[in-house]
Amino acid sequence: MLPEETDLNPLILPEILQLEDVAALAEEQLPQLAEELREKILHSVSRTGGHLASSLGVVELTIAILRLFNPDRDRILWDVGHQAYAYKILTGRGDRFHTLRQHKGISGFPRRDESPYDHFGVGHASTSISAALGMVTAREIQGGGQHVLAVIGDGAMTGGMVYEAMNHAGAMNKRLIVILNDNKMSISGNVGALSYFMSRKLSSRWMRRVKREVSDLLQSLPGVGEEVFGLLRQSKKSLKSFFTPGILFEALNFSYLGPVDGHDLQKLQEALRLARASDTPILVHVLTRKGKGYHLAESDPLNYHGVGGFDPMTGNVQAPGAGDESLSYTEVFSTALCDLATQDTRVIAITAAMREGTGLTRFSKRFPSRFVDVGICEQHAVTYAAGLAVQGMKPVVAVYSTFLQRAYDQVVHDVALQNLPVVFALDRAGLVGEDGPTHHGVFDIAYLRHIPNMHILSPRGRRSLQNALATAMALERPVAVRYPRGQCPFFEDQEQFKILPMGEGAFLRQGDAPLAVISVGGTAHRAWAALEEILQEGGPSIALFDPIWLKPMPEEQILDLARRSSTLVVLEEHALAGGFGSAVLELLAREDLLGRCRVLCQGIPDAFVEHGSAEILRERLGLDKDGLKKLILAHL
Amino acid sequence: MLPEETDLNPLILPEILQLEDVAALAEEQLPQLAEELREKILHSVSRTGGHLASSLGVVELTIAILRLFNPDRDRILWDVGHQAYAYKILTGRGDRFHTLRQHKGISGFPRRDESPYDHFGVGHASTSISAALGMVTAREIQGGGQHVLAVIGDGAMTGGMVYEAMNHAGAMNKRLIVILNDNKMSISGNVGALSYFMSRKLSSRWMRRVKREVSDLLQSLPGVGEEVFGLLRQSKKSLKSFFTPGILFEALNFSYLGPVDGHDLQKLQEALRLARASDTPILVHVLTRKGKGYHLAESDPLNYHGVGGFDPMTGNVQAPGAGDESLSYTEVFSTALCDLATQDTRVIAITAAMREGTGLTRFSKRFPSRFVDVGICEQHAVTYAAGLAVQGMKPVVAVYSTFLQRAYDQVVHDVALQNLPVVFALDRAGLVGEDGPTHHGVFDIAYLRHIPNMHILSPRGRRSLQNALATAMALERPVAVRYPRGQCPFFEDQEQFKILPMGEGAFLRQGDAPLAVISVGGTAHRAWAALEEILQEGGPSIALFDPIWLKPMPEEQILDLARRSSTLVVLEEHALAGGFGSAVLELLAREDLLGRCRVLCQGIPDAFVEHGSAEILRERLGLDKDGLKKLILAHL
Repeated sequence: MLPEETDLNPLILPEILQLEDVAALAEEQLPQLAEELREKILHSVSRTGGHLASSLGVVELTIAILRLFNPDRDRILWDVGHQAYAYKILTGRGDRFHTLRQHKGISGFPRRDESPYDHFGVGHASTSISAALGMVTAREIQGGGQHVLAVIGDGAMTGGMVYEAMNHAGAMNKRLIVILNDNKMSISGNVGALSYFMSRKLSSRWMRRVKREVSDLLQSLPGVGEEVFGLLRQSKKSLKSFFTPGILFEALNFSYLGPVDGHDLQKLQEALRLARASDTPILVHVLTRKGKGYHLAESDPLNYHGVGGFDPMTGNVQAPGAGDESLSYTEVFSTALCDLATQDTRVIAITAAMREGTGLTRFSKRFPSRFVDVGICEQHAVTYAAGLAVQGMKPVVAVYSTFLQRAYDQVVHDVALQNLPVVFALDRAGLVGEDGPTHHGVFDIAYLRHIPNMHILSPRGRRSLQNALATAMALERPVAVRYPRGQCPFFEDQEQFKILPMGEGAFLRQGDAPLAVISVGGTAHRAWAALEEILQEGGPSIALFDPIWLKPMPEEQILDLARRSSTLVVLEEHALAGGFGSAVLELLAREDLLGRCRVLCQGIPDAFVEHGSAEILRERLGLDKDGLKKLILAHL
Repeated sequence: MLPEETDLNPLILPEILQLEDVAALAEEQLPQLAEELREKILHSVSRTGGHLASSLGVVELTIAILRLFNPDRDRILWDVGHQAYAYKILTGRGDRFHTLRQHKGISGFPRRDESPYDHFGVGHASTSISAALGMVTAREIQGGGQHVLAVIGDGAMTGGMVYEAMNHAGAMNKRLIVILNDNKMSISGNVGALSYFMSRKLSSRWMRRVKREVSDLLQSLPGVGEEVFGLLRQSKKSLKSFFTPGILFEALNFSYLGPVDGHDLQKLQEALRLARASDTPILVHVLTRKGKGYHLAESDPLNYHGVGGFDPMTGNVQAPGAGDESLSYTEVFSTALCDLATQDTRVIAITAAMREGTGLTRFSKRFPSRFVDVGICEQHAVTYAAGLAVQGMKPVVAVYSTFLQRAYDQVVHDVALQNLPVVFALDRAGLVGEDGPTHHGVFDIAYLRHIPNMHILSPRGRRSLQNALATAMALERPVAVRYPRGQCPFFEDQEQFKILPMGEGAFLRQGDAPLAVISVGGTAHRAWAALEEILQEGGPSIALFDPIWLKPMPEEQILDLARRSSTLVVLEEHALAGGFGSAVLELLAREDLLGRCRVLCQGIPDAFVEHGSAEILRERLGLDKDGLKKLILAHL
C-alpha cells in the first residue's frame, strides 16, 4: 500500500460510476485503479471484517475481466464468491461497500437479488462451472452471443463437482471460459495430487514413464537412433515444461492457456482476449498471490482469509474477548479432541480444507500422522471416514454444519446404513452471523434426525461439549456432535470427559410453573437468562431442561415433563420444520400426551435467514432472551 | 452358454466350498468355472430378477481376483455392487444365491452384515475408492500387509467423488489397487469427455498441441532437425498409442496398467500379479463386455441391466402387467413430460445416467437438443439445472428419490436459496422393493420439506401426476414432484394438465366418522381399499383426504378436518421422523388444535428397511390395506 502515490494523481475509483467506465480507462491508469481498490477493500474490511486475502489477490483479474467482458450481456460466475469484493465495488456497489456483511448491508458473497451483475449466488465451493455450463447450454438453445466465465480457485478445484462439470463441458464442447485462480492454496494450503500437478512438480513415476515411452517412440522411428535417445535423456527440463498443468484439462477437452501472471494487467488482458476468441471450452490458468498488496496478508494469508475487524496499520486483529473464560466452542473442541486422541490411538481427524476453522491445527501438529486434510471434498471425507471405521479406527470428521450438507447421502448410505462409528464434529450449528444464508447451520437436525442409527448430541457449553465428544468417541455408532459458532460459556461444573448416559438430558433449572422450557444446545444460555429475569421480576420459577441428546432423545424425561406441564416451550436455533420441536411433537403424539400438554416451538420459520450479526438475527427471530421471555409471558 | 460342454466334465462350482478352492484350481479348469458361474447367474437371475449384464461381464475378473487376493486378509470393494454376483457365489453364498433380492434372502448388493467377505456395503455409485483409501490409511497406521482393491465401472468413474478420492490417493501415495472395469457404458451409455479419453479417441485439439510441442521439443535438441520432425509428422498412430488413457490417472499419481482383456483369464491374472507387487497406487484398466456369455444381454445390455424375471432361452422378459391400464408412474411421467415440452420449448430434461429408469428415453428421442445426460453426477446435474433456470429455461431433473440425496446441498444452496424454477421429478419415492435399503426413497420429504422456497407435490395416480407435473412446470419456483415405483392406477377422472391450486388437497372420500385419514401420494389406494372394506363390513364412513401438496400443505383444509375430527390418521410410505405426519403435527401445534384432535402417524419407524417385494415390506410395516385397517379399527 503506497498511499503517497495515490496522492499524486486524482482518484480514479470515485469516477467509476458505470460499467463502461472501467473499459474506458487508459491502460496506464489501471495500476492506480488497482491500488485504490486494494486500499478501499483493506480499509473497509478492517472495519467490517470479511475475506480479505482472497479479494486482494484478484484485483487485477477483476479489472481485466471488466475490460474485456460486459456483465450486462456476459455471465460472470465467482466460485465461492468471497473473492468478489473488487467486482462488487466496480459494478455499482462502491458506495455501499462499507456495509459489507452487516445486517441489511451488502452480502459477503455474490447474490442475484443484490445486483443484476451477480449472475449466480454462491458461498459453498465448486459450483461455478456447473452453473456456467447450464448458462452455456441455455445460450446454445436460445441463441445469443454472450460469454460465460467461471472464476474458480485452485482450492475449489479439488471438489468433485468441478470434475463432473468439466467432463460434461468437454464433451459438450461449446464456448465456455474457466479462469483458474491459482493462489496455491485453498483456505489452509492445498492438498492432493492435483496441486503437485499445478505447480509442475510432476510425479517421478510419470516422468519415468514419459521418458521411457518417448524414447521408445523415437527409437521406433526410422532414422532416429541412440543418439537422439541420449539427448532426450538430458532433456528432463524440456520434458517438464512440455507437461504443463494444461495436460489434465486438455484431457477433458479444454484448451489451456497459461500460466499467466495474475498481477500483470497487460498479460491478463491478452490472455482473456485470446480466451474470448475461443469457440470451445478454454481454461485460463492465472497465478495470483493471496493478500497481494498488503504485506501482512501476503505473508500470512491464512490468518487473513476471513477476518474480523483489525487495525490496517499494525494488522492487530481485534480479539473477540480475552483470557481463558472466552474460549470458543471450536477451541474447546480442539483441546478436548487432542486429549481424547492422547488416550486413544485409534482417533483420526479429518477436515475438508478447514483445518483452522474447525480447530484442528493443534491436533495436526500433535498428531500429524493421524490428521488428514482431504481438500474441499466433503463427500470423499465422509466415505473415507467410513472406510477408516470399518478397519477399526475412530474417525472424527470435523466440518461446519452447512458443509456437511454436501455429504448427506454419504452419511446415510456409507456411514449410517452400515452403523459405523464415525463422529461428526459439526461446528457452526445455528446462526453464523455475517456469512449469511449460505452458511447458517440451521438444517442439520432436520437432515440428520430421520437417518436410522444416527445419534445426535447438542452440548450447550464447555463441559458438556467435552463430555459429548468423549461420549461420541466411546460409542461404536455414528454420532453427530453439533455446537454453535462463538464463545463457549463455562456453564457447568461436572466432571470432565464423563460418558453421558444415552438419552439422558439435564435439568438446568427446576421449576413449579405449569410451563417448562426445553432448550437445544447453546440456546440454554439465553433461555436461562430469560427464566432468571422472569423470576427476578416476581414471576414463577420455570423448569429448564437440556436434552443434550437430540437422538435418541431423553424420552422418559420429556414425557415426564409433559405429564407435569400444560405447556412445553422448545427453543432451538434451527428450522422449525423437522427440527427438535418437531421431534418432541412426534414423541408426544405417539404417547398421546398432546391432549394435555401444548408444545410451543420457537425456532426459525420457513425462510432463509439473512446475514448480519448473530445478535441482531436472534433478536429479529425472537430467539434471544427477550424474545423467549415474551413468548413465555404470553403463555404462562 | 454351452450347456453341452459342462456335461463333458464334472461340475466345478459345487466343489468350491472355501475361498482357497478357487486358488487351488488348475488354470485349465478356470474357463469351465467361468461358464458354470455364468450359467448359475443367468438361470438364477432369470427367476429372481436382478442386475444381469454387469455381473456376467466380470466373471473372469472375479475369478482372477480370488486367485490372487485373499478376502480373509485383503479388502475387496465393489463399486455400486450389482456386479458382485459371481463374487457372492464364490465366497460361500452359492447355496443361497437363488434367494437373491428376495425378502430374507441375500442382497443384490454387497453388505457387511451378510458376509465377512463383503468389506464395504454399496448401492450408490462412486464410493469405493474413498472407502478403500480409508482402509489403506488405517493399514498404514496400524501396520499390516493387506491389499486393498476397489473395482469400479467406467460409469461410476464419472462421479466427482472418484476424482476427490483419486486426487487424495495420489498425494498419499500408498499401496492401493483400483480396477477400472471399463465396459464402455454406465447404465445407459457413457457420457463426458473422459469416455472419449478411455476409448483413446483423443480430442483433435489435444493431438494438435501434442504434435506441435513434441516437434518444438525435438527441434530444440541439438542434432535433431527437420528430418525427425518430418518423421514425427507421420507418426500420428504412435503418438496416439503413447497417450493412453493412463495419462489422466498418471497425472493423479497412479501407475497405469492396461488395457487388459477382461475375459482373458491369463492376462487378467498377469496384470493383477503386477498390481499386487506395486508399492504405490495403481490403476488396472480392464475391458469387459456387459452381458458377456449371454448373447441377448451382450447385444442389448441396457435392457438386461436390471431385469425382472425372464425366460433364459428366449429372453422374453416377464411383463409386469399388460395393456394401457398398467402404465407405471414412470411411463405416465414420460408421456406427460413430452406433452408439456411440446407446448413449452423452454423445457429441458436432465438425467444423471438414468435415461431409461427415469422414463426419459421417449423425451430424448423427440427432443434430442433438450435432453442432457450428465453421467452419474447428481451434484452437477442440480447446479447445472440452476444455471439453466437462471437463463430462462425450464429444467426438469429426473432422478430417483434416493439419488437426489447426493445433491441435497445443491438443492438447498443453488436452487432453493435462489428460488429458481427447477423441477425435480422424483421417481421411486417410497419403498422400491428388491433393491433394498440403499435404494428405498423414504427420506425425501424429510430432507426437502425444511428447505425454504421448496414446493413438494405428491400425486397419487395418473391424472394427478400429469397435473402435478403441469403445475410444477407452471410455477416459477423450485418444485419436487415425488411419485412411487410401480403401477400407476387410473384413479381419478379430472381434466388433464389442470394447474392444481397451490396448497389445495382433494377429498377422495367424504365421511362422518370422528376419525379421518390423510394419505400421502400412492398410499391413497391402499387407504381407499381399507376404508371401503370397513364400510362394507358395516363400519362407519371415513373421510379420506389427499393433500397432494406436501409443501405448502393445504393448511385450511387440514385444520378444518382437524376441527371436525377427534383423530387424524396420516399414512405415508416414508420415515416417520420428519415426514408429512410430522408436518401435520407442527401445523396443528401452531394452531393449538392438538388438544382436541389426536394425530396418529403411520409410516416407517426409525430403522432401515430391508429388501424384498414391496408388498411384503408394506405388510410388515403395517402400510398395506390390512395394517391401516387394523390401526383404524383400534382407534375408531
